[in-house]
Amino acid sequence: MTSKEPEEIEYKPFTTGELLSRMKDAAMLMVDLSYAALMLKDKELANEVLELGKEIDTLNYHLQTTVMLATRDAEDAKASQSILKIAALTNRISDYAENIVDMVLRDEEVHSTFLEGLKIMDEPIALLQVTENSTILRKSLKELKIRTKIGVSILAIKRGLEWILNPDKNESFYPGDILIARGGSTGIEKLRELVNPKT
Amino acid sequence: MTSKEPEEIEYKPFTTGELLSRMKDAAMLMVDLSYAALMLKDKELANEVLELGKEIDTLNYHLQTTVMLATRDAEDAKASQSILKIAALTNRISDYAENIVDMVLRDEEVHSTFLEGLKIMDEPIALLQVTENSTILRKSLKELKIRTKIGVSILAIKRGLEWILNPDKNESFYPGDILIARGGSTGIEKLRELVNPKT
Repeated sequence: MTSKEPEEIEYKPFTTGELLSRMKDAAMLMVDLSYAALMLKDKELANEVLELGKEIDTLNYHLQTTVMLATRDAEDAKASQSILKIAALTNRISDYAENIVDMVLRDEEVHSTFLEGLKIMDEPIALLQVTENSTILRKSLKELKIRTKIGVSILAIKRGLEWILNPDKNESFYPGDILIARGGSTGIEKLRELVNPKT
Repeated sequence: MTSKEPEEIEYKPFTTGELLSRMKDAAMLMVDLSYAALMLKDKELANEVLELGKEIDTLNYHLQTTVMLATRDAEDAKASQSILKIAALTNRISDYAENIVDMVLRDEEVHSTFLEGLKIMDEPIALLQVTENSTILRKSLKELKIRTKIGVSILAIKRGLEWILNPDKNESFYPGDILIARGGSTGIEKLRELVNPKT
């Protein structure tokens, strides 16, 4: 788990709005996953939350670059500072999610009676890795109709170092992909069979 | 806009998990709405975000009371501190949403080119007040099928001082209710006609 140095980050031409949207989506997903990790005492999920935190750092780096490149005069600079402020606030939301998962990783005890009624219980979150013999390989979300057919939402796909948040309908699956899925336990079991079939 | 003093708050018997879920839902809604308020430069929406912040303060107060009443010995106290820590972190997420709307309320300029591509644009958020001649009065969300029929999600209902977050299917509507709705602009217009028909 080495953190990316800015030098290693390739500059990608996104708009600041796109980068900010992705930062916000990632931060919101981190908060959701941090609560789920807490409920399930799931260290693997907790570690994915930290990985998403690194993704936000990368997005923030791109955002700062894009904003600086777009700043031509003193008037621009004023607007630039506002956008950087929003990015910083979004970044801090992700810091709080990281604080929550730190509790999980340090085995800080949260008595289960205190967590009774926590709504995330109804819809478990699962991490599933796509294997080479999976039946969903190279099929798109649109074809698979995972949400309508088995009632599971794919919140994110982690492909190597890349995160695909709120994947769109044309996204398809490759061996090694880690899916972050939310749904009823029956649905999650069905998805597990598709993603990682027992031979 | 007077903030509630703890003395005025009636103690309600919720579980800590339920209170924490509601705090988290409210905080996440605040973040979403704060971005929408920023995009739309909408001060009314910005003020609702601040109102939701007060709701979180109230929930936090109930949570602290519930946790303290449940703490009997030193071992309990350790678990209690963890849950209060999570509540405090969730509370701070809402503080950041408040910081974002402060920018809107203070007319801090964010140049629109910087916001291009911000995804919230595709799905506008609207505040709609239910009038006495509304055709949806006393009908439940289940009967109305707002999501499936007109493609709009009701994120929250504000009824007097009460907030109903992620309203369930049996929730129905009363005159004066303020709906926070998200959906395509055609859907929002259709909902506006139902909620507040032109006479």
